[in-house]
Amino acid sequence: MADAEAPTSTANAPLADAIALVAGEVDRRFDTLLAIPDDPRADLYRAMRHAAIGGGKRLRPLLTMATADLFGVSRECSLLVGTAIEAIHVYSLIHDDLPAMDDDDMRRGKPTVHKVFGEAAAILAGDCLHALAFEVLADPDTHPDPFVRAELVLDLSRAAGPSGMAGGQMMDLEAEKARFDLATVTRLQQMKTGALISAAVEAGVILGRVAPEGRRSLRGYAHDLGLAFQIADDLLDAEGDEALVGKALRKDAGAGKETFLSLLGVDRAREQCRMLVDQAVEHLHAYGREADLLRAVARYVVDRDR
Amino acid sequence: MADAEAPTSTANAPLADAIALVAGEVDRRFDTLLAIPDDPRADLYRAMRHAAIGGGKRLRPLLTMATADLFGVSRECSLLVGTAIEAIHVYSLIHDDLPAMDDDDMRRGKPTVHKVFGEAAAILAGDCLHALAFEVLADPDTHPDPFVRAELVLDLSRAAGPSGMAGGQMMDLEAEKARFDLATVTRLQQMKTGALISAAVEAGVILGRVAPEGRRSLRGYAHDLGLAFQIADDLLDAEGDEALVGKALRKDAGAGKETFLSLLGVDRAREQCRMLVDQAVEHLHAYGREADLLRAVARYVVDRDR
Repeated sequence: MADAEAPTSTANAPLADAIALVAGEVDRRFDTLLAIPDDPRADLYRAMRHAAIGGGKRLRPLLTMATADLFGVSRECSLLVGTAIEAIHVYSLIHDDLPAMDDDDMRRGKPTVHKVFGEAAAILAGDCLHALAFEVLADPDTHPDPFVRAELVLDLSRAAGPSGMAGGQMMDLEAEKARFDLATVTRLQQMKTGALISAAVEAGVILGRVAPEGRRSLRGYAHDLGLAFQIADDLLDAEGDEALVGKALRKDAGAGKETFLSLLGVDRAREQCRMLVDQAVEHLHAYGREADLLRAVARYVVDRDR
Repeated sequence: MADAEAPTSTANAPLADAIALVAGEVDRRFDTLLAIPDDPRADLYRAMRHAAIGGGKRLRPLLTMATADLFGVSRECSLLVGTAIEAIHVYSLIHDDLPAMDDDDMRRGKPTVHKVFGEAAAILAGDCLHALAFEVLADPDTHPDPFVRAELVLDLSRAAGPSGMAGGQMMDLEAEKARFDLATVTRLQQMKTGALISAAVEAGVILGRVAPEGRRSLRGYAHDLGLAFQIADDLLDAEGDEALVGKALRKDAGAGKETFLSLLGVDRAREQCRMLVDQAVEHLHAYGREADLLRAVARYVVDRDR
């Protein structure tokens, strides 16, 4: 990639710069998308903005954009698609934090949406971000080819629904009542967290119009990364610093849920996480330096402190 | 339309038969779509089935199918799209009934989802039906043309989001705290109820690949029908029979909300509703007997007792 392109491409930038760049771009997109109207819906938009703007690692848009960069996709386009995927992620955080679900007071270092705006506005803010994500993906301004738009919607709706994120969250709620084995916990986490991470990479692949045979390696990368990410999350829950992570920790053990940690122990869980990251990186062997950002993201996942 | 087609077409069947036919077809679709898996998500699927199967007037799929029938669209296709729109409607009912929202115990003559399955499952069942709707619309098995699929997603996501149904529900919650005038109540109801009714008709128009100039009359029909439907709903809330309607009534007055009824009074509200139905029917003047079902739906809306 030419040096002249450096300021608008994450491909060769160090990871911290890439994260900061994407975070700023996603924030600006949400700022436009969620402009507060001068009518009785103002609090609804404030609630969406509270959750969507100025927080989070933006891992999913980063994955979409870094993957799309491999295939020379316009960054304006991959940013819009990444923002839509982040909207799905943010909606799920709002609903998961509700008193009837995980009952969390803090998220990304701020009070959760229902704590500030009430439960009704939180439910509706989540619902609205969910619908907005599909509106962005289906909008001709996001991508000129309807085939690509329809494929993106299919990718994301499957990852968000009962066979993906929301189904995984249901299994997670059941985990407090049942005793899951490692296979079931793995499936649960692949649905709850892995599906959307995979969809974020797949979105980059769809935008890049990659032929089916070329998709396998990036799917393998996304699959292993998603699982590694969740194990790292479990480790953070057990060993992390609440001030850094920005939410309440040590909740898994208190709820008596089986997790990777309870089933494997800290040492084996960390080893498993490292192994999955190595595997994820190995899937990228056919790519050169242009995939360094995806490699760096995988390494970051296991070493992060938030 | 040829007599030979009568058993599979609603176009010339009396309204009650058409409603029963569509209701049975939508139920069968949901039964397939929501087959209960043998894993910890079983209750999530039971919750979705409880809300989606065996109840409701199925007005929205009926509108999609009756509109699509005007243009010779395959009924298998319009049924799938109608079912997706009904999934959006059902998800909104589940969330609106939650304790933090309208706090309703009964819906369609049955206990509400959160009463039977708990609040967490109710929130997730709504979220899943929301995602499933877009999955159905974006699926190549629903329609072979990606342009049509993307247009359907755009139509529905706009109708469901902050400028449509969910935005209207937020305004409705604010209505308990503010004193809305007739213009604001009209806008609220056009968003909360009208947007999805319009989207259901528009979906039939999209499936029929109707040129822009041909869409105006059906849009006018949908717009007036949506408003008439909501005024009729307000009248039912004030005068209806709870056993027939299948949910708690007289809630608007108790909450001190301004509605069409509180602002217009019963007589002028009923007159306004009749006028809107006449206007809706008038929009169909260019169509012959093939639009009789759409006319019958409009007449039914003002005279219904549930």
